[in-house]
Amino acid sequence: MGYTDLNAPLRTIMTPGPVEVDPRVLRAMTTPILGQFDPRFLELMNETMDLLKYVFQTENKWAFPVDGTSRAGLEAVLCSVIEPGDKVLIPIFGRFGYLLQEIASRCGAEVCTVEKEWGQIFEPEEVINEIKKVNPKLVVIVHGETSTGRLQPLEEIGRFCRENDVLIAVDAVATLAGVDVRTDEWWLDAVIAGTQKSIGVPSGMAPLTYNDRIEKILLARKKVERGLSGGSSNNSRRIQSNYLDLSQIQDYWGPDHLNHHTEATTMLYGLREGLRIIKEEGLEARLKRHQLHEKALVDGLEAMGVELYGDKAHKMTNVTCIKVPEGIKDEAIRGTLINDFGVEIATTFGPLKGQILRIGSMGYSCRKENILKVLGALEAALIKYGAKVNRGEALQTALRVYENSSEPVLI
Amino acid sequence: MGYTDLNAPLRTIMTPGPVEVDPRVLRAMTTPILGQFDPRFLELMNETMDLLKYVFQTENKWAFPVDGTSRAGLEAVLCSVIEPGDKVLIPIFGRFGYLLQEIASRCGAEVCTVEKEWGQIFEPEEVINEIKKVNPKLVVIVHGETSTGRLQPLEEIGRFCRENDVLIAVDAVATLAGVDVRTDEWWLDAVIAGTQKSIGVPSGMAPLTYNDRIEKILLARKKVERGLSGGSSNNSRRIQSNYLDLSQIQDYWGPDHLNHHTEATTMLYGLREGLRIIKEEGLEARLKRHQLHEKALVDGLEAMGVELYGDKAHKMTNVTCIKVPEGIKDEAIRGTLINDFGVEIATTFGPLKGQILRIGSMGYSCRKENILKVLGALEAALIKYGAKVNRGEALQTALRVYENSSEPVLI
Repeated sequence: MGYTDLNAPLRTIMTPGPVEVDPRVLRAMTTPILGQFDPRFLELMNETMDLLKYVFQTENKWAFPVDGTSRAGLEAVLCSVIEPGDKVLIPIFGRFGYLLQEIASRCGAEVCTVEKEWGQIFEPEEVINEIKKVNPKLVVIVHGETSTGRLQPLEEIGRFCRENDVLIAVDAVATLAGVDVRTDEWWLDAVIAGTQKSIGVPSGMAPLTYNDRIEKILLARKKVERGLSGGSSNNSRRIQSNYLDLSQIQDYWGPDHLNHHTEATTMLYGLREGLRIIKEEGLEARLKRHQLHEKALVDGLEAMGVELYGDKAHKMTNVTCIKVPEGIKDEAIRGTLINDFGVEIATTFGPLKGQILRIGSMGYSCRKENILKVLGALEAALIKYGAKVNRGEALQTALRVYENSSEPVLI
Repeated sequence: MGYTDLNAPLRTIMTPGPVEVDPRVLRAMTTPILGQFDPRFLELMNETMDLLKYVFQTENKWAFPVDGTSRAGLEAVLCSVIEPGDKVLIPIFGRFGYLLQEIASRCGAEVCTVEKEWGQIFEPEEVINEIKKVNPKLVVIVHGETSTGRLQPLEEIGRFCRENDVLIAVDAVATLAGVDVRTDEWWLDAVIAGTQKSIGVPSGMAPLTYNDRIEKILLARKKVERGLSGGSSNNSRRIQSNYLDLSQIQDYWGPDHLNHHTEATTMLYGLREGLRIIKEEGLEARLKRHQLHEKALVDGLEAMGVELYGDKAHKMTNVTCIKVPEGIKDEAIRGTLINDFGVEIATTFGPLKGQILRIGSMGYSCRKENILKVLGALEAALIKYGAKVNRGEALQTALRVYENSSEPVLI
């Protein structure tokens, strides 16, 4: 009948999110509440915006979190930009492309898709040719497709969109702060991220940024709520969501702080601390760290004799997919890892379910001890279920990667 | 250029939300992350659902939080229930009624409103007569209108709706866990709350509950996403939001745990702890505590000679509105309170802005020391700006209320 103290086992979380959170972030989240219009809280909001611009590598005026999980951020951008009947092109190369299609169609878009076999990415010209054919108002595309572990090159597509007055919005939920995401240099009009992946903050916020090409649409669709000071307004082009209406949310984050929602105080504390940690580490150093640990993981897996899945040239740095050996159940391996070793890795979705396992190495989870732990535990699980592996090679190989690193590996 | 450690002044937050959070809740939020499908995390989700049913006083199958602030919960219910052209009746007696109107109209409803002068509530027959006239599919109404501090009686309206096959959804964002909210006994089909008010948890989640009359609509409108196992489906009655689609969210909270979003781990830890505290205190004792502190506050204010605003018979227990004395600026009083005493109280919206100040006594903020502090600080501020007050009476009166309480006042 009673509910016990909150006890949670300490897990080594090597999934593509949510991942472990730096204890500093959790500690920052114990800071007492401030009112949403408290002068100090407004300063913290402004600092968070500045830090987000650094991580998004952008000079955009707007960068703030939406109070919801990643797909709230995706929907905020899509429903704020898309008007009924707008043509939207969505290149799909995994599950999260389908999600974009789903959201865009619920916004009333005329959605055109082009699909690639799972495990591949699009050559930029393929997307560009499709843009020429379809002539959409907006292209929406996933950067890091965690369902397959693939990374889509964006710069050429972004430049083509800009030169041809097409908008492009990018789902960088899994990549931002773990893989290079150059909002401005790649000509991206809107980029959406999540807190629970490479940023290393608990799930529940969706940081995003957008430029003045997007803002122009927001301003044209703006509708002021009744009951606030300053009167209301009508707008036949109004955004279909109130909660995810970026024209209102930017007024809340802007200098007027016009009441919209009540900012999620404690999550904002956590996000600010997570971003501050990124700034202290340095974005470039952080991306290099993700690359180094990826190399230790991948070389270790290959030394073990495990087969990697997907087009290796376009692999996400922070997600590694392996094929489940013939005759073994993915859930058996996952079960041994979590129940005996306290290590969580992930299965996947749709057509690949049962065929691959996914290992994340994101944010605070991307540490030497975690890479070594997942390699050791995976080897034991594979041996237990009768897979043929090169015993003892994985850890030795990974250790050598760390020893040969030009810089000391502290974490 | 550097960003400092997170420093936030310790405030006494006597607004209608967000309010102070019990240190136990903040401590629970430092628990390390669990994966969203970790067996232990699924247990925590189930326990949270059970605890929510206790607080909502319901036997409903469904009670869970939406990952967003309160208005995300309101929009989740409205957009999941309302189909384009549906007739929706919204009785309005303050700012948050306008918000319901705003959200419902963005869902494509044909919205009918009936308005009451701010500071009043509706007699149940007034709403019932309007229902008879309009014959809506759905009535949406605020329970505790924080913009004016008024509490709308709901039972008669709820019963009439049930007997006449009309649905009723209630915004109990400000009331749940601080004021009596009887979901089942009052015949309410859906009730939406917020974490940052009387529940005493940081902003960022919107707990809600609904019954099988609502679920029937959700199931009829359900559309499965592509890219998940089990194939996709089409549905011309599909819900316009993906993120706030309750038919998908209930599948995520249900026994199948079908992937939708990534549950906001740390917020869930906080919500579970906040609800556990309510269960330990006992809902009835908690409501009585709110009443006692309200009496100390109100009697103290009246002894001071401050004029209360609004229909006293229908005052919210946890929000007290006072008229700003002639010739004094509301922001001057608020400024002295926060800058000199560290006490935050609130102004309000729309037509009442500048005329009243609002004092909250919600959740963990609803404590003896806080009531006494706000009374003392307010008296000093009013004297400073030249208002005529009965010096020294407020605190003596409030102290007597506590001394005369039949039970010892521990907090």
